[in-house]
Amino acid sequence: MDIVRQQADADTDSPAPASPRRRRFIARGAVASLAAAGSASVVPGAAQATTPDNLPPNIPQWMREPGAGFLNPAYGLPSPFEKAVVRKLPDQPAAFPTATRTPLQSLFGSTTPNGLFFERHHGGVPAIDPAQHRLMLHGLVERPLLLSMKDLLRFPAVSRSHFLECSGNSMAEFKAPGKGSVQDIHGLISGAEWTGVRLADVLAEAGLQPSASWILAEGADAAAMTRSIPLAKALDDALLVYGQNGEMLRPEQGYPLRLLLPGFEGNMSIKWLRRLKVGDAPFQTREETSKYTDLMPDGTARQFTFTMGVKSVITAPSARQVLDGHGFREISGLAWSGHGRITRVEVSLDGGRHWQAALLDGPVQSRALTRFRFPWVWSGQEAILQSRAVDDAGNVQPTRAALVKSDGQNSIYHYNAIQSWKVASNGEVSNVHV
Amino acid sequence: MDIVRQQADADTDSPAPASPRRRRFIARGAVASLAAAGSASVVPGAAQATTPDNLPPNIPQWMREPGAGFLNPAYGLPSPFEKAVVRKLPDQPAAFPTATRTPLQSLFGSTTPNGLFFERHHGGVPAIDPAQHRLMLHGLVERPLLLSMKDLLRFPAVSRSHFLECSGNSMAEFKAPGKGSVQDIHGLISGAEWTGVRLADVLAEAGLQPSASWILAEGADAAAMTRSIPLAKALDDALLVYGQNGEMLRPEQGYPLRLLLPGFEGNMSIKWLRRLKVGDAPFQTREETSKYTDLMPDGTARQFTFTMGVKSVITAPSARQVLDGHGFREISGLAWSGHGRITRVEVSLDGGRHWQAALLDGPVQSRALTRFRFPWVWSGQEAILQSRAVDDAGNVQPTRAALVKSDGQNSIYHYNAIQSWKVASNGEVSNVHV
Repeated sequence: MDIVRQQADADTDSPAPASPRRRRFIARGAVASLAAAGSASVVPGAAQATTPDNLPPNIPQWMREPGAGFLNPAYGLPSPFEKAVVRKLPDQPAAFPTATRTPLQSLFGSTTPNGLFFERHHGGVPAIDPAQHRLMLHGLVERPLLLSMKDLLRFPAVSRSHFLECSGNSMAEFKAPGKGSVQDIHGLISGAEWTGVRLADVLAEAGLQPSASWILAEGADAAAMTRSIPLAKALDDALLVYGQNGEMLRPEQGYPLRLLLPGFEGNMSIKWLRRLKVGDAPFQTREETSKYTDLMPDGTARQFTFTMGVKSVITAPSARQVLDGHGFREISGLAWSGHGRITRVEVSLDGGRHWQAALLDGPVQSRALTRFRFPWVWSGQEAILQSRAVDDAGNVQPTRAALVKSDGQNSIYHYNAIQSWKVASNGEVSNVHV
Repeated sequence: MDIVRQQADADTDSPAPASPRRRRFIARGAVASLAAAGSASVVPGAAQATTPDNLPPNIPQWMREPGAGFLNPAYGLPSPFEKAVVRKLPDQPAAFPTATRTPLQSLFGSTTPNGLFFERHHGGVPAIDPAQHRLMLHGLVERPLLLSMKDLLRFPAVSRSHFLECSGNSMAEFKAPGKGSVQDIHGLISGAEWTGVRLADVLAEAGLQPSASWILAEGADAAAMTRSIPLAKALDDALLVYGQNGEMLRPEQGYPLRLLLPGFEGNMSIKWLRRLKVGDAPFQTREETSKYTDLMPDGTARQFTFTMGVKSVITAPSARQVLDGHGFREISGLAWSGHGRITRVEVSLDGGRHWQAALLDGPVQSRALTRFRFPWVWSGQEAILQSRAVDDAGNVQPTRAALVKSDGQNSIYHYNAIQSWKVASNGEVSNVHV
């Protein structure tokens, strides 16, 4: 049954860390044994009833009365006790905030719930009636098409897990270490199971003219968000998606239709997709000339830097958290690469001097979030925690020094350097550049 | 990139259906070509503006004004246009309804959103404060333990995708064909990515006594829902889960802690888990004597029928839907087995006389929902659509006749027979027993 750990072993060249099964996870006395607890009340104030079947002496209030019939029968919501687990606007509110960030520090596994999936928009969230929405496909095609959502739902569908990352995620780290949480610093990354139609199938329906080589994709928002897509990507793994994590896309994710370009910077996965125009050259839209280019140290700008680099971040523990005592705890985080599949994540406890292989939750999928885990016994010493991801194209996540050396500090996009969290001897975790 | 279809091919012995890539998905005239559409208005009443970049003649209203800044920045919700996609109480309301059903006909892929995950409870939904919640582990152990949620969150975690199915799902089909939708008939099945702790790890922490062979699991709800778990299952793949699809469990799914027994009938995955008592025999609780036993034709009752059988159901098209015209459409559905991994799903268009292999979305995981797809061109003839699943233990989903022959019609649990949907020549889909 232990698919994941076998997978991690198979994929790593160096020895895996000692199996957690051979460790003790809780120090003697760190949790209450029943003997030690005696008749200590689990619920303060609950009566000391004893029941036939060796029930603990205290029955919590919520066992003494019927629960709610149905909380939200039509569409459920999180527990009120989880009200702090929410998306966040920037700490320094902009005049016109355009993004909310995912609470990575509170999430598990490799799925981001739709309600917590990061959002970024350029002209607000349009309220699109799916019955009115159309996708136009024109330009260098044999048969221009105007497709309704009903038309698209009749095409063969596929479901695939992929991450989406804003190209500006972690941008402030080019300069100084951010003071916020992992959500503030890296929260423009999320992952989902997407369902939709292969763009290649729709293009085949229209028929491409021989000179076709680029596609303009346009959103039906007030910004008419527009990007040029290389035809090779369109014919490879590009999807026109209407489903996310099993249900229809949320409005802020492009309802009812978005382009999905696995591994490419998020802004290219055009939301509220209304138009695809096939051409023979990039269209040089506003978003790929004045924006979404990478300013290099020599003053030139890189254009069309589509693919998000290999990257990882430890989400637990992470900045602004305080470790609740010594002993065993699991270091856990997320890794991803726009180039393909994560094959290896290593963790350092000493700021990058020594590295050990982490375990990967499986099945590991291409261009998808991958959860890694690393067993750690914290003895109370100061530590610098880092993670370093490697993908199946051989890309290795760079140190911050190496990234700054190659790309300088003028750019605000494609920051994928190794993140360092300092754990102080009092348990406080903070963001540092080492 | 075509992992899924390769996987489907590798797993099937008979030829896969003709690749959908070689078909035309939309008949000439079935969708509007731009030539045919002329200047037809996409949005009635919108102005006939022409814009520089070959925009279609009509710009929808939602491109003419900024969209909403943020709809629900903290925690997002579905589009108001999706308000019909909800969980459902039974059509014939009981005096005390205890379940809501998942809208299978409206979902994609193999993930059920947490808000639409089916629910079933025996004493209502308790409002548990996670800081107060404790898990007691006692009985035939070396060191009884009382664990807080904080304690459990420090154990090594795993994330795995598994289905949960109520053992009473589809129960009415033992008798007569239900008149409802696939949601009404089969909606007590859902799937999620679960995160939690291996029960084996927690048991190792406590230390098992030599005679240990069964575990009593008890919920902290008003029903004190209680079942006996074989130790072998507990040591195999049982989990104590706190995470579902990336976030904390929802209240109706056992917040803050539930047992998860992959492949076993849903009621055994005890929600609001508060107690595990290790013993040397089953505990013969109410739920395994008066309830959750299977009454056989000879008047005896089968007890401890834990594993949910191999099963599948076509969700599109399905009962109460009406096909919106002839031509290509994809038949799609879900398959699962409590015994392991789905290796093959076959589809019949003629009530079971001929079968063809469906494609499986991958990666296919053990004891998890698997989406299957089958290309179909409907010519307007009456058809009886069926799906038949096979798992890696060699189990084959039975016909209804075979199931009734072996198990009779007295039982209300473990109905896993092949579902037949009749498509009438007018496109109406209904539930039939053939």
